[in-house]
Amino acid sequence: MKITKDLYRGSLTLLTDFYQLTMAYAYWKSGKAEEEAVFNLFFRKNPFQGGYTLAAGLDYIIDFCSNFKFEQDDLKYLKEMRNADGSATFEPAFIDYLQSMEFSCDMEAVEEGTVVFPHLPLLRIKGPLVQCQLLETPLLNIINFQTLIATKAARIVYAAKGDAVLEFGLRRAQGIDGALAASRAAYIGGCASTSNVMAGKLFGIPVSGTHAHSWIMSFDTELEAFKAYAEAFPDKCVFLVDTYDTINGVRNAIEVGKLLRESGKEMIGVRIDSGDLAYYSNIAREMLDAAGFPDVKIVASNDLDEQIITSLKMQEASINVWGVGTKLVTAYDQPALGAVYKLAAIKNDKGEWEPKVKVSQQSIKINIPGIQNAIRFSKNGKAIADMIYLEGEDLTSAQYIIIDPVDPTKRKKINTIGLDEEFLLKPIFINGQKVYESPDIHQIKKNSERNLALFDKAHKRFVNPHIYPVGLEEKLYELRTQLVFKMKNYDGA
Amino acid sequence: MKITKDLYRGSLTLLTDFYQLTMAYAYWKSGKAEEEAVFNLFFRKNPFQGGYTLAAGLDYIIDFCSNFKFEQDDLKYLKEMRNADGSATFEPAFIDYLQSMEFSCDMEAVEEGTVVFPHLPLLRIKGPLVQCQLLETPLLNIINFQTLIATKAARIVYAAKGDAVLEFGLRRAQGIDGALAASRAAYIGGCASTSNVMAGKLFGIPVSGTHAHSWIMSFDTELEAFKAYAEAFPDKCVFLVDTYDTINGVRNAIEVGKLLRESGKEMIGVRIDSGDLAYYSNIAREMLDAAGFPDVKIVASNDLDEQIITSLKMQEASINVWGVGTKLVTAYDQPALGAVYKLAAIKNDKGEWEPKVKVSQQSIKINIPGIQNAIRFSKNGKAIADMIYLEGEDLTSAQYIIIDPVDPTKRKKINTIGLDEEFLLKPIFINGQKVYESPDIHQIKKNSERNLALFDKAHKRFVNPHIYPVGLEEKLYELRTQLVFKMKNYDGA
Repeated sequence: MKITKDLYRGSLTLLTDFYQLTMAYAYWKSGKAEEEAVFNLFFRKNPFQGGYTLAAGLDYIIDFCSNFKFEQDDLKYLKEMRNADGSATFEPAFIDYLQSMEFSCDMEAVEEGTVVFPHLPLLRIKGPLVQCQLLETPLLNIINFQTLIATKAARIVYAAKGDAVLEFGLRRAQGIDGALAASRAAYIGGCASTSNVMAGKLFGIPVSGTHAHSWIMSFDTELEAFKAYAEAFPDKCVFLVDTYDTINGVRNAIEVGKLLRESGKEMIGVRIDSGDLAYYSNIAREMLDAAGFPDVKIVASNDLDEQIITSLKMQEASINVWGVGTKLVTAYDQPALGAVYKLAAIKNDKGEWEPKVKVSQQSIKINIPGIQNAIRFSKNGKAIADMIYLEGEDLTSAQYIIIDPVDPTKRKKINTIGLDEEFLLKPIFINGQKVYESPDIHQIKKNSERNLALFDKAHKRFVNPHIYPVGLEEKLYELRTQLVFKMKNYDGA
Repeated sequence: MKITKDLYRGSLTLLTDFYQLTMAYAYWKSGKAEEEAVFNLFFRKNPFQGGYTLAAGLDYIIDFCSNFKFEQDDLKYLKEMRNADGSATFEPAFIDYLQSMEFSCDMEAVEEGTVVFPHLPLLRIKGPLVQCQLLETPLLNIINFQTLIATKAARIVYAAKGDAVLEFGLRRAQGIDGALAASRAAYIGGCASTSNVMAGKLFGIPVSGTHAHSWIMSFDTELEAFKAYAEAFPDKCVFLVDTYDTINGVRNAIEVGKLLRESGKEMIGVRIDSGDLAYYSNIAREMLDAAGFPDVKIVASNDLDEQIITSLKMQEASINVWGVGTKLVTAYDQPALGAVYKLAAIKNDKGEWEPKVKVSQQSIKINIPGIQNAIRFSKNGKAIADMIYLEGEDLTSAQYIIIDPVDPTKRKKINTIGLDEEFLLKPIFINGQKVYESPDIHQIKKNSERNLALFDKAHKRFVNPHIYPVGLEEKLYELRTQLVFKMKNYDGA
């Protein structure tokens, strides 16, 4: 799949912060543009006060990087940029340098549908400093959003306890791609379908939908409207029953359901989109059962999220299918994941990698230096802990101690005998060449299911979830501590 | 400007909810597809518990409707859709009907940068039922988001009291167009620039940005990094001073500022991106003033919004320029505007317009029926009230009574003598032909300023803003009341 090239016209290479270009220019002026660097993309807190995060967006990124190239109109725009005094912002030779630039980085990343946690590297890029910088902003844009929505979807699907969750957020999503990318991520996170036809066409996601209130209002009576719909879609009748009065709506649906049955068809469901969903769904269930329609499903919608679905389940609402929109596609209660992208190492004049750290007064904001990977230990199909370690480290030890990146008194001993091990970062690009074949979207969805099954339900509850252990291998912890001390002394703090 | 055609490849016509297509099919089967209808787009509550809303997105919509056409690959996708039993979802003749469809609606809308309020029609479309339905979802997607962000930007700019506000939310925005559309709307709402280079290229918005922490970290020392940046951009030095230690960072900036001055250049500013912004900005100000740099600006960033800016202003923080990202481009505290699109009238067999109303148990959810427009009364450059009325109504009265759509005991008498009047809906398309020339983005921004100046600051405060009066003209109120009674009786409630 070529998402960005299929969806967008021309180049997306300028989809970056202007400071990436001013830095690119200044790196180029300083002769540092081609210095090799390693950057890590990670986040510091699970969203929604939850216990886990579900990674998504990699396929967009593969496509973005595969098409990373300054096109003529990009270069023209940059060439015409002016300083306040009318002089050109960028020298012509720099424009030529951009024109000749080709994506040549190594990239490793966690696969889509992988359960991830704070501090783990989600993506690691190694290559010329200037390319790593230019890619920072689009990589963050794509991963931040799709990961956020996949996680939100997984939570909502978890709350629905096996019932189908239909995503229909297009009308309230944040922009056109805000909707498309959300539909994609929501499917990865476990939704059964989307209402967004273009997402269906682009990504191969199942689409679903029946009719709106306006369908009913365009007829003289609701009964007439239901009958007309049944004529067009005798096999797909889910009647929206709350345009005027929900109980009367169910009555009309039953009447048309009986007509359908006479012609050998069965009504599929009724949908309630307003009012007290617990109360009305139970009345609808009783009416349908009494009328001989025990298999007709009740679809509910109206600003649903995992909390409201949980509450409706507790109230024993008779709802079988959940339609979710706004709260899912905007991740309403936390509309941004704060993933960041930090310089982890740079190659010095002697060709040696120097690990890099950014000091901060907030301990949680100190990054993890060096070229890292992460390993997930599991036993009998249950994940035990993740260890972040320095690439090249000898991993044959029978025992590790992992140390929490924020609170070093939190440590966990891991005896590796009998444990399964999975390396979380997989090679995606080598020297700019793609070496990874993206699974199709249905396989990615299965990967999410497989991943989520690895984790205990204690990590999945919505209130005060159990914290999954992720720690630094001892040598990495030591390196980081020494570097922080050095930087603090160095700057006199 | 052709936004969607410039940005997106091919057709966006399938960017709609699937139920619009199933309804289209069912309308077509029932012979109702070409019946003429009128739909209104409006919202029910100002976002952010605020006192007003700033409309944006129309230019995207004009472009969307101008390019509304089912392309071959759209039709192919629909043709290949299958029911559970393997039969085609849509008849071939319906696919042909879609293929021949051309946008032929009338559209009226408020201009971008217009201050609007709950219940006012933001957009009114008249045309074949099937076209009105297919357009519902994209129109809502576009207007909901851009209006939300323009409003958020206006609030943040208001809090900054004349200081420049720079938008740099790309990395945390909801998807690619979530970022681009947000940059556009933020500029309309009053931001001075965006960090998003592609938004600069596509929309002509000024771009800004200097350097990141990684710039500093890629050098051995911060001083060295500042010097190298000053060599590349001697006229544009805004140094990020908090990579290691803010106070030492300011010291280093001053040192490079002095070197710049020796070569006849002036440092522009320093930026603080973490820590206590009030505390450090005041220390930085003192240090800069004492070193002879009273004109050097202090730029602050780090999860800012209108509330935090207000608080920093109250604390007399020495901040001159505000960089805002996440909280602006995602409208963090309310990431969706709940605008809806409701059938208002339909033409019957006799060629008469029948007003339509959707009844609800929640009074606020009952729409306003009939073909409406709105008029804004003002006096001496201050808006007094908005009146929603039925198109065709005699408007020569010297006095009106307007009635609140939710609470009919709230009424206001308007003596029109000496008042200025503005019709809020302007013709955009007639029979599918564009009759409106979009202003350029800088003019739209000026329109926002002119509009915001019409309203008293009591409507602009963040806590419990004064409610601006918007009401129904008496005849419209009467029509609506009678229709609701009729619908409730009709369905036996």
